[in-house]
Amino acid sequence: MEATAMKVVLLAGGVGGSRLADGMARLLGSDLTVVVNTGDDFDHYGLRICPDLDTVLYTLSGLGDPERGWGLAGETYNCLEALERLGEEPWFLLGDGDLATHLWRRQALDRGLRLTQVTDHLRRRLGVTCRVLPMADEPVATRVRTDEGWLSFQDYFVRHKHQPAVRELAFQGSPGLSPELEQALTEAELTVLAPSNPFVSLLPILRVSGLAERLPRPRLAVSPIVAGRALKGPAAAMLASLGFPVSAAGAALALEGHLDELICDEQDRALELPCPARFLPTVMRNPEDRLELARRILEGWPESPG
Amino acid sequence: MEATAMKVVLLAGGVGGSRLADGMARLLGSDLTVVVNTGDDFDHYGLRICPDLDTVLYTLSGLGDPERGWGLAGETYNCLEALERLGEEPWFLLGDGDLATHLWRRQALDRGLRLTQVTDHLRRRLGVTCRVLPMADEPVATRVRTDEGWLSFQDYFVRHKHQPAVRELAFQGSPGLSPELEQALTEAELTVLAPSNPFVSLLPILRVSGLAERLPRPRLAVSPIVAGRALKGPAAAMLASLGFPVSAAGAALALEGHLDELICDEQDRALELPCPARFLPTVMRNPEDRLELARRILEGWPESPG
Repeated sequence: MEATAMKVVLLAGGVGGSRLADGMARLLGSDLTVVVNTGDDFDHYGLRICPDLDTVLYTLSGLGDPERGWGLAGETYNCLEALERLGEEPWFLLGDGDLATHLWRRQALDRGLRLTQVTDHLRRRLGVTCRVLPMADEPVATRVRTDEGWLSFQDYFVRHKHQPAVRELAFQGSPGLSPELEQALTEAELTVLAPSNPFVSLLPILRVSGLAERLPRPRLAVSPIVAGRALKGPAAAMLASLGFPVSAAGAALALEGHLDELICDEQDRALELPCPARFLPTVMRNPEDRLELARRILEGWPESPG
Repeated sequence: MEATAMKVVLLAGGVGGSRLADGMARLLGSDLTVVVNTGDDFDHYGLRICPDLDTVLYTLSGLGDPERGWGLAGETYNCLEALERLGEEPWFLLGDGDLATHLWRRQALDRGLRLTQVTDHLRRRLGVTCRVLPMADEPVATRVRTDEGWLSFQDYFVRHKHQPAVRELAFQGSPGLSPELEQALTEAELTVLAPSNPFVSLLPILRVSGLAERLPRPRLAVSPIVAGRALKGPAAAMLASLGFPVSAAGAALALEGHLDELICDEQDRALELPCPARFLPTVMRNPEDRLELARRILEGWPESPG
């Protein structure tokens, strides 16, 4: 790990966010705070499942499945098979090792710990050196209106394999800043918005009461759209169905008011953009790419490493 | 399965009870109702764990581990290993497949089903043909006083490996008869007390309000003590520490007032017993032994099979 004095806040969703978080954590160590979307969280068999938090924790710990980008490497599904035997339809892929995280979290929440505290315990146990904060302690829920009506996020994303066109988004709950998040925002000097879905990963975070106006500036956003396509998930389809250009420019418009600079992929040099921009190789295929992208993003900012 | 018109209620704990239940179920099919101890039930990571119910269900479904007598055959423990990675001490052996039962039950209870209904769903899903009823819908808890003080049952049984001498027993909760159990007791013509621990398996059942006086007669009890030893678990040690003879006679005294005939092992023919007795080969080493013991127990009673 390289020494740096710069404290950075990274807003992140799942797979793309966790990959950039990994690169930045290796540069910044405990000076990095990853603020993770919890709008996808849901209850399942009495467990509290936090898909983005877990993806970030597993990726940062090195325990994650590098191919899928989520879940644990070498995962087994014997519990899920037994649930099928009981007549259940296994729409959510619940791994045996992953279950341990959900069980541990359930128990800790039942004992009165806040999600922020639970997450901090988990990241320490898993050997994650940077800070990982849920965007809020209170349960919140992203809902999407599709041509099939309003759906919970997991219904849309997992059950319907994010195929229905999204017409509108709504956020249930009135999340506020946790003390830990407020402190991290006060201490940090730079904000990075990860290449995560603007609508269902970043906007839920930016909606947390008091968060957007406290984000340390400059605020750099890494486009999740490269050459008109999302690297993962439904970001491109959502831009289209919600009336935005399907490009890095569209991603910038979706995040309007929340960024000072857009970091686009080099393939998009020809794009006309609504804000200041830099062009970098943003596609992260392996851990070296993650570190390199993190280094390049931070380059040029005061006291930045490198 | 042999046809029979006799309806039987079997009171059972875990391993010994489930083995006799298996033999009797093959004789009686849906004319058998197994009433299972829930005094060992406990909450663990937010799940409701019912060790005796699960042992009975797994054994009757043929999915159980024949060597151990409890748990699923071919079970894996990847979740438990992941819990250890999170710093947990795995005192309770939570299998990956077994977790499905606990998760399903948690969800069903959260949706408002009673434990009796949950158990009936599970036994149908697992292909169990006889009826399986928890002794009560309400949570109850057996506690034991040892020289180390009062312990919850699982603390005593699993954490302390049932080593501390038991000086006293207490039962928390005021369980009442479920409608299903009341009906089964009304319809049945014979009661069998399985070779289960009198103190922590059978007496908790007999304590359910209204149950003992409604048990159909005759009430036959199979001794869990053979030649002065318990076939499994701490029954012999408990008889000793609670001041009873360590023999089938002691088991009969522990169940005084609740049995009309004691079925002892042939090895105990020389014993002086406080009640009418029959002597049969009671040790069940394999499924054939179970069926043969069930057949012999029911022999001689009106309309009995065979």
